[in-house]
Amino acid sequence: MRVSYKDMHSQFVRVLSKYGLDKEKAGLSATMFADASLDGVYTHGLNRFPKFIKSVENGSVLINNEPRLESSFGSLERWDGQQGPGNLNAYTCMNRAIALAKEHTIGCVALRNTNHWMRPGTYGLMAIKENCIGALWTNTVPNMPPWGGKDARLGNNPMVVGLPHGDTPVLLDVAMSMYSYGKLEMYKAQGRLLPIDGGFDKEGNKTNDPAKILETHQVFPIGYWKGSGLSLVLDLISATLSGGCTSCQVGKLPTETNLSQVFFAIDLNRFPDQEELKAKIGESLEDMKTSTPQEPGKVVRFPGEGLVQVRKENTELGIPVDEAIWNKVCNL
Amino acid sequence: MRVSYKDMHSQFVRVLSKYGLDKEKAGLSATMFADASLDGVYTHGLNRFPKFIKSVENGSVLINNEPRLESSFGSLERWDGQQGPGNLNAYTCMNRAIALAKEHTIGCVALRNTNHWMRPGTYGLMAIKENCIGALWTNTVPNMPPWGGKDARLGNNPMVVGLPHGDTPVLLDVAMSMYSYGKLEMYKAQGRLLPIDGGFDKEGNKTNDPAKILETHQVFPIGYWKGSGLSLVLDLISATLSGGCTSCQVGKLPTETNLSQVFFAIDLNRFPDQEELKAKIGESLEDMKTSTPQEPGKVVRFPGEGLVQVRKENTELGIPVDEAIWNKVCNL
Repeated sequence: MRVSYKDMHSQFVRVLSKYGLDKEKAGLSATMFADASLDGVYTHGLNRFPKFIKSVENGSVLINNEPRLESSFGSLERWDGQQGPGNLNAYTCMNRAIALAKEHTIGCVALRNTNHWMRPGTYGLMAIKENCIGALWTNTVPNMPPWGGKDARLGNNPMVVGLPHGDTPVLLDVAMSMYSYGKLEMYKAQGRLLPIDGGFDKEGNKTNDPAKILETHQVFPIGYWKGSGLSLVLDLISATLSGGCTSCQVGKLPTETNLSQVFFAIDLNRFPDQEELKAKIGESLEDMKTSTPQEPGKVVRFPGEGLVQVRKENTELGIPVDEAIWNKVCNL
Repeated sequence: MRVSYKDMHSQFVRVLSKYGLDKEKAGLSATMFADASLDGVYTHGLNRFPKFIKSVENGSVLINNEPRLESSFGSLERWDGQQGPGNLNAYTCMNRAIALAKEHTIGCVALRNTNHWMRPGTYGLMAIKENCIGALWTNTVPNMPPWGGKDARLGNNPMVVGLPHGDTPVLLDVAMSMYSYGKLEMYKAQGRLLPIDGGFDKEGNKTNDPAKILETHQVFPIGYWKGSGLSLVLDLISATLSGGCTSCQVGKLPTETNLSQVFFAIDLNRFPDQEELKAKIGESLEDMKTSTPQEPGKVVRFPGEGLVQVRKENTELGIPVDEAIWNKVCNL
């Protein structure tokens, strides 16, 4: 089943308004949710929407709270998210980081006391639109063991890096775990094995069986000890710069809230050799594709490359939806 | 065999001076090489020194060239390394990034036309010493296939992130490949298998046999498609900010030179809640260690944790050296 962008957007506005969100903010939030599904990031668009509403209901998200500038340190600002909606907080902070970048070349907003930001790529695309490099990450509740351990002590701390490249920007969106729990659930439901080992089973053996990993919750960090270290430093940086909670502190709260996030922007408009830089990026992306494919017939792709095509298709044909979830949202 | 720090340092100064490096710079370069070995990073201390001298001999490194400020954009500066020694260039640029951070909270130096910086952690420790967060990376010659491809198109692009934490700072030092070629050679020479699959064999199967990976040169990026994307964006950012070569462009040169690097510093001295931040970092690091070990008896460690102990031991007992390499350096 496919649904038009307009219909999906309207439903989101309707429900958000019903839950008390101001009209203008409901429109913006709806746009971010609908854009995620439009761009093929279904997990963080329509499919995430009911969970967002649940977090409003259980008091993790205080729906009309707005982020507030706490203190200013030149190119860096600290904001307090006041437990407002994560996507609206992140939107405000990314915009502010871009404004700081236009002033100082590099701009950073560190945000504390915020909530899940929904689709991470949203904020990378905001930077790209302004001809900025964007780099942003969030901490999460502890959901991944550090390398060498069995119990979750680290977040999977999703990170986005975006670089402008005409109509097909580079948009990297990676969590520090090899697979998210959502992915593990999906593979399990489909009765499929993971293409690559994703964690330990009960006996401490590496496994690509999602069901066995869902039993232990011992997911692998990307690059094992390397991603374990990366996750740690992303968490410590976001908590240090924002003055907010570490993953460890978030883990002590009843729900996943009071997250710490950072939004970096670097303004490329400053550089006199912009055309040369564009050509250089294009050359590298083309060069990657000349690598002989591991699987004959396939071509190497860069992160974000598929986005434009999916967006085009979904704009023309409507956005594919899980009918049950769509009906659920229509009845909220 | 062990050699005292003083003797090792003297040998480095002697050889560097013989190759024409000014006295003061020879002392600084020798300190960076000797510190690497003192801290247990043998691959990038004594063991790397003969290769450095070779790169002076073959003209990749122009030994007395100094980095030069090219242009200034507020919190970010572009420097030209003029193909000088990579470690001295990086030292100057990291210092400059720290100075910019003291002015703007965030400071960045983007360096082009430089050479291999030897031990990456050196520059992270410089930031830490000034109570800054340090984040720095370099591109390299293409030495890793992008995920889905067989031919190297990406660098392994080592990255360092350092955070102050009293006497035991957090120092993450990771390349974007699962194993470096140095590590593969080491395992092969010792007749050992890798603890984790490190690449593809000739038949396109994943393998933990270092000899088979050295045949194909198809090393895995950390987290497979994720590290492939991370490597790409690190390269593009370093080349874009510095205006220098991408990995793709470095690959067209006769030797690995004209690298692009970035050095970020964030000044923590600015924050009024420093003591709270320190406590928070300490709490997270302690918390990690409470994760039940995968191997009974082992304890989870954070990146850089072992450094102090190794430095202490090597200071007291002398630095362990490969006798053949030590003799080679003494005869240079």
